[in-house]
Amino acid sequence: MTDFKSQEFRHALGAFTTGVTIVTTCDADGEPVGVTANSFNSVSLDPPLVLWSIAKTARSLGAFAHSGHWTVHVLSAEQEGLSDRFARRGEDKFAGLETETGSNGCPLLTGCAARFQCRTSFEYDGGDHLILVGEVVAFDREDKAPLVFHGGRYALATRKGGESPAADEPHSFSEDFLGYLVGRAHYQFLGALRGELEEQGLTDPEFFALSTLLQRGTQSQAALDELMRHSGFLPQFSPLTRLAARHLLEAQTVEGAPGYALTASGRAVVVRLVAVAKAREADLVEKLGQWDARVLKNLLKQMIALTDNGTVKVWHPQDGRAA
Amino acid sequence: MTDFKSQEFRHALGAFTTGVTIVTTCDADGEPVGVTANSFNSVSLDPPLVLWSIAKTARSLGAFAHSGHWTVHVLSAEQEGLSDRFARRGEDKFAGLETETGSNGCPLLTGCAARFQCRTSFEYDGGDHLILVGEVVAFDREDKAPLVFHGGRYALATRKGGESPAADEPHSFSEDFLGYLVGRAHYQFLGALRGELEEQGLTDPEFFALSTLLQRGTQSQAALDELMRHSGFLPQFSPLTRLAARHLLEAQTVEGAPGYALTASGRAVVVRLVAVAKAREADLVEKLGQWDARVLKNLLKQMIALTDNGTVKVWHPQDGRAA
Repeated sequence: MTDFKSQEFRHALGAFTTGVTIVTTCDADGEPVGVTANSFNSVSLDPPLVLWSIAKTARSLGAFAHSGHWTVHVLSAEQEGLSDRFARRGEDKFAGLETETGSNGCPLLTGCAARFQCRTSFEYDGGDHLILVGEVVAFDREDKAPLVFHGGRYALATRKGGESPAADEPHSFSEDFLGYLVGRAHYQFLGALRGELEEQGLTDPEFFALSTLLQRGTQSQAALDELMRHSGFLPQFSPLTRLAARHLLEAQTVEGAPGYALTASGRAVVVRLVAVAKAREADLVEKLGQWDARVLKNLLKQMIALTDNGTVKVWHPQDGRAA
Repeated sequence: MTDFKSQEFRHALGAFTTGVTIVTTCDADGEPVGVTANSFNSVSLDPPLVLWSIAKTARSLGAFAHSGHWTVHVLSAEQEGLSDRFARRGEDKFAGLETETGSNGCPLLTGCAARFQCRTSFEYDGGDHLILVGEVVAFDREDKAPLVFHGGRYALATRKGGESPAADEPHSFSEDFLGYLVGRAHYQFLGALRGELEEQGLTDPEFFALSTLLQRGTQSQAALDELMRHSGFLPQFSPLTRLAARHLLEAQTVEGAPGYALTASGRAVVVRLVAVAKAREADLVEKLGQWDARVLKNLLKQMIALTDNGTVKVWHPQDGRAA
C-alpha cells in the first residue's frame, strides 16, 4: 500500500471505469446551468434514487443546492465534445445547443444514452464535495454506445467475448495470435465474394485493382503498381496486363503517364462484386452491433497506423470509398 | 420520458458504464465478508473519500455497518469469475482464495486493478440502500485492464481513437469500411515478411502452407487443399507441387492418404519467417497496449465466428499455434 499522495490517489481512482454525465439545472435567474460529472451512480430502486457529487468550490454549487431539481444526462460515445464543453469553466455552455425543458423544469440535452430527471432528496456532506441524492421523477433511454472514462481519458466499451456469438464455439479460437486472427478475418470476409470471383476468373489482386479503379477513377500505372506492392501481391501476379487483355481495363494516359481506366464490362463486373462486399459489410455490422463494429474499426485503424511503413498514401481515400 | 417502471429504470441505469468492485470487511466474529458492487465512486480528494451503496436487505449489511472499516477492490478484466462469486449469496466466498489482511484489518484480495482501504466516515440513508462513505487510509494500484459493466453485462474498455497514434494522420482513415480495414491491416502486418518472402521467392499461399505444416505437423493433401480454399487462394495458385519441386516439402503418406511434410530446408525457411512474424506481433501488441490488443483479438474472433461458412474446422488449432 502506498502512502497517501493526492496525485497517486487520483491515479488510483482512475482505475475505476465510469460513464460520463452532464448534470443540468437552472439558477435563481432561471438561466440554464450544467456541469460534466463522472461521480454519478445508482443508489436505490424503491424509491428510485441516484446520486452524484459536486465540488464545494464549483461556481454552480449554489444553483444545484438551491433549485431542488436537476437532470442527469448519460452521454453517448458521440458526445465527447459536449463533455469537454461542460467540463470547462466560464463559457456559455448552452450556446447553440438545442435543448428542451424537462417536467422538472431543468434543461434537457438531446442525443444522450439516458436521461434522469430528479428532485433532490438529500444533500450530504462529502468532504470537499457535496453529495446530491435525487429521486428520479422521469427518465428515458436510447440505445447508444456510451462515452466511457478510464484512467483520466475517454474510452469505448465493448462486450466481453464470453457473451458474444463466438461463445458457441468455445474452443475454436484458442489461437490468440493477432497476425493470424486478422488474416483469417480478412479471408473469411472475402469468402462471400469467392464464388463470384471464381466465376469471373478473377484473383484477389485483380479484384483490388478493379475496385480501386471503380472508387477512385482512372489511375496511372505507377499508382496502381504502388497499390499492389502495398497489398503485398508479388510483381509476377501484377494483374493489369491480364485485365487489359480481358478488356476489363483499357490503357489510358493519366497526366502524361501511362495508366488504366475501367471499360464498361470491367465496371459491370466490379460493381456487382462491390455490391456483394457492401451487403457482407452491412450484415456483419448488424450482427456485431454498431458499438462493437465501431470499436473494431477504431482498433484496426490503430493497427494500420502502427504497421504503416510509408506505403499508406496510395490507399489514402481522397474522394471516394475503396471496397 | 417514460412513466416510472422498475424494470425500465434498471435498464436505463444500465446505460451508465461502471467498473466492478468487491468490498470486503470482517463480521463481529472476525470472519471475512465480501460483496460485489458497482455503486462505487470517488467523492472527495481532501479528505480522500469514496462511497458505495449496499442494499438494506443484504445479509452482510450488519458487518459493513458495524465494523467501521471496509476495503474496495476495483476488479481487473481477468476477475470476472471473482465478481460472479461475490455476487452470489450463501457461498463460502473466500474458500480457496489467497488473501492478505490490510492495515484496516479487512481482507485484501489480490490481482486487482486498485484497492482502497477505508475507515467509515458517514453512513447515509439512500432509500432501499445504505450509502457508505469512507476515508481512504491506504490504497494501491496495478496497471491492469479493468472489468467493466454496461447494460447488465460485463464489457471491456478500450481507448478512443482520438487518443491513439492514428490521430497523427487525422485524414488517413476516413475510409470506414470494415472489409477494407481488416484487409489493409492484414496486408500491412504481412508487410514485415514481404522482403523475406520475396528473397525466398515465396507467395503468400506458399507461406501459409509452410507455416501450417510447421505448427501442425504433416498434413494430408486434402486437409491442405481445404486450408487453401478457406484462405481464399484460387486453385491455380495451389502451392504444394511447387514447394515440393523446390524441396521445401516432401510427399508423405498420412493415414493411408497422400500428404506432405516439411523437409529440413523447408523447416529452416519457415522457422525464420515465423520468427519475423512473432517479432512483428510482439512489437504491435506492445505499441497497441495489452488492453487494446486484447479487445482487438476479442472482436476479430467475433468477426471470424460471424463470417464462418463452415470452413473453420481446418484452421482450428488443435495442439499448436498457426503463424
